[in-house]
Amino acid sequence: MLSNIRIVLINTFHPGNVGAIARAMKNMGLTNLYLVDPNDYPSEEATSRAAGAVDLLENATIVSTLEEAISDCSLVIGTSARHRTFQLPIMNARECAQTVIPESKEHDVAIVFGRETTGLLNEEIAQCHRQVYIDANDEYPVLNISQAVQIVAYEIWMANQDQTTYDKTVAEYPRKKDMDLFYEHLEDTLYGINFIVRNHPGKVLDKLHRFFNRSRPEKQELGILRGVLAAVQREAGLTDANNHPEKKAKKTPEQE
Amino acid sequence: MLSNIRIVLINTFHPGNVGAIARAMKNMGLTNLYLVDPNDYPSEEATSRAAGAVDLLENATIVSTLEEAISDCSLVIGTSARHRTFQLPIMNARECAQTVIPESKEHDVAIVFGRETTGLLNEEIAQCHRQVYIDANDEYPVLNISQAVQIVAYEIWMANQDQTTYDKTVAEYPRKKDMDLFYEHLEDTLYGINFIVRNHPGKVLDKLHRFFNRSRPEKQELGILRGVLAAVQREAGLTDANNHPEKKAKKTPEQE
Repeated sequence: MLSNIRIVLINTFHPGNVGAIARAMKNMGLTNLYLVDPNDYPSEEATSRAAGAVDLLENATIVSTLEEAISDCSLVIGTSARHRTFQLPIMNARECAQTVIPESKEHDVAIVFGRETTGLLNEEIAQCHRQVYIDANDEYPVLNISQAVQIVAYEIWMANQDQTTYDKTVAEYPRKKDMDLFYEHLEDTLYGINFIVRNHPGKVLDKLHRFFNRSRPEKQELGILRGVLAAVQREAGLTDANNHPEKKAKKTPEQE
Repeated sequence: MLSNIRIVLINTFHPGNVGAIARAMKNMGLTNLYLVDPNDYPSEEATSRAAGAVDLLENATIVSTLEEAISDCSLVIGTSARHRTFQLPIMNARECAQTVIPESKEHDVAIVFGRETTGLLNEEIAQCHRQVYIDANDEYPVLNISQAVQIVAYEIWMANQDQTTYDKTVAEYPRKKDMDLFYEHLEDTLYGINFIVRNHPGKVLDKLHRFFNRSRPEKQELGILRGVLAAVQREAGLTDANNHPEKKAKKTPEQE
């Protein structure tokens, strides 16, 4: 079950941290490590710090974009300091583990850690459904990344030992890439009905994106929402749902 | 209160670990570090790994025996792998924190960590009142010492927070009656665009209702969603948003 939980590290700078994280993960029964465009890797220092967890490094999946690391996940959780302007539902590490354990019975779950110095970018947080922070001293709250992974992994281990978390029933959620198709469909439709003006998109799309990521439609609900969009397009005369609205805007009168 | 809790490290070998431990402690509000006969210390590597917690290194108490580090403490807890021949009452890190917090109100408490490779000697364990272990994967249970301190310190921080209620910032949510108006608007629109057939509504409305109730749009988000519905109605020729679709369905051709 814990094999459905992956730790995703973005642009790690110090290879020693990657090694320490592999060890921290294995200590807590996690095996699934994704590295997005790591600096200076593979490296001897990573191997040395990994100690008995070199197998995790050897089996790590190395990709070049966050997208590749999470596209088949139904739940993506970004780590962050407590306060972000881009607000998603936020949990502490303990609550995060209690959410992740039942979900990982059936689905792949990613927990994403940002760069050592700057954390996750807003556009990366925007790809997440939830945020997790680690309770810490307000006067010095920023943990070393390997320590942060250790605590998140430890809480997952603890929650997994706690049988009460097993009983939660979990809805079936769409994969990240299905949500992306929905967002495309939504955007096309909103342009098509002139709700958004192409040169002046403002922040409406971001806000809708945030709303739907936060609310996590279930698989069936997403199907209904897609159906609504298709019906809107049909009624508004945007018959070809795959037609990009820009093309429609350029239609000549003869085509109408 | 947390200043009555000290972390005692015996014969650390890697100075980098001491630095990482200082940081891990400060992250969790602990300030009181004792080093028993450390190897290669002070060192640049310790300072570098301590990051913003160099003050803890500067204020660390360096002694030559364990006895000196713990003699004024009322409670001494030794860290260990779960099974030791020398049996003391044993707790996991969470239980340890719950024991330490009330005790530290009045007394000094020490948590003692052994050497990186060999841990605590039996004669050192014999000076402790309790043992603490960290729940971990049986197949690979030995954590790096800085990670072990991080988890113990984190559990202390969590236990200390327990009574505190956080001022979570709360978004502005619409009133129930505003949600009801949204649902009416949604229903009208879905009939209007023939997404729902009046004699055959099925469970789609219920499901959408459930989805939006669960996702709790904020006030501003609800405004955007209402705007989307109004745009759909306009584009689909349902110009009067207040017109119930049933009335529209009954329109005579002349009215059109």
